[in-house]
Amino acid sequence: MDVGLSFSGGKDSALAALVLDSFYDVTLVCGTFGITDDADHAAEAAAALGYPFERLELDEAVAHEAVERMVADGYPRNGIQRVHDHALERLAGQGFDAIADGTRRDDRVPTVSRAKAQSLEDRYGVDYLAPLSGFGRGAVDALVAEQLEVEVGPSEQLPKGDYEAELRALIREEYGDERVHEVFPDHDQTRVVGLRDGE
Amino acid sequence: MDVGLSFSGGKDSALAALVLDSFYDVTLVCGTFGITDDADHAAEAAAALGYPFERLELDEAVAHEAVERMVADGYPRNGIQRVHDHALERLAGQGFDAIADGTRRDDRVPTVSRAKAQSLEDRYGVDYLAPLSGFGRGAVDALVAEQLEVEVGPSEQLPKGDYEAELRALIREEYGDERVHEVFPDHDQTRVVGLRDGE
Repeated sequence: MDVGLSFSGGKDSALAALVLDSFYDVTLVCGTFGITDDADHAAEAAAALGYPFERLELDEAVAHEAVERMVADGYPRNGIQRVHDHALERLAGQGFDAIADGTRRDDRVPTVSRAKAQSLEDRYGVDYLAPLSGFGRGAVDALVAEQLEVEVGPSEQLPKGDYEAELRALIREEYGDERVHEVFPDHDQTRVVGLRDGE
Repeated sequence: MDVGLSFSGGKDSALAALVLDSFYDVTLVCGTFGITDDADHAAEAAAALGYPFERLELDEAVAHEAVERMVADGYPRNGIQRVHDHALERLAGQGFDAIADGTRRDDRVPTVSRAKAQSLEDRYGVDYLAPLSGFGRGAVDALVAEQLEVEVGPSEQLPKGDYEAELRALIREEYGDERVHEVFPDHDQTRVVGLRDGE
């Protein structure tokens, strides 16, 4: 069975790949609006992990809708959720037996409810998997420390292939640099650079 | 890191063991009230899977409380939930780095809410893992078919080491055979007899 896993190059989606690896042929899939080249960072991380990688074209109209919402809200949550929902719909249509993402039990956003999962499964004839949804923050941190080599840094200096990089760029372009910092307060990102020795 | 996984000998908890196997030293733990010897079935399944096995003594007062509730309700859900909560508390106190169970996304009972999971983790200093909670029924069935050799049969003829066998016996003893069939309508159980070839 094959699974297309929504992949940003970050530690959560990388760990999700390792969990699925015993049971599925994993392809890492990075959604991109084509606004920036940040999907390249996800491609590098996928190569370092040794998984096949695909880019998935997302609808730029959704990016515009999402940033409009984020700027109006003053925080990114609802916009990110909108983009994730769209990306899962696109991914579900790619012909994989199963699709997956790296959402964790303690994540506030994005979330995929049981009803939304069931709806995706019914409409596309795929299984939707959230392999980390039964793992809390402590367990995820412990497993990442054991399994993955990561780089940590501020999101501006450590771009990865998640939606944030492209949405930041779009906000900068349409609303100016000030608004980027309003919507996305400074926070550290993690990018995967490989598997730990012994893997 | 070691994990104590609540194990009945059924397919869900067996699949949960396989998911955790890449990351943890797995011990299968079967809670028992000492009412019947059905934990022996879980011990056999654990041996067939090749994992260490432990019995965990549960408080018989909880079994009495649970069957009283079940008989009053006319269905088993709340009683099973009470027993599972108790078993997880006991398991959390056994000194494992992490504890786990086989609850799936689509299960109605037992369930472990995010708040309950966090409370267990905080009070006992363990991680609580629900490795199948991000997998729906379709995915679990596909993975079980691929990974496990199972026997299927009516619950009366195919006892395993889950709470149901002991609770049925207790209801029979205290309320008579009629009530057993009222509370637990006939349904098929699955017992694991080994790993599929090629594992």
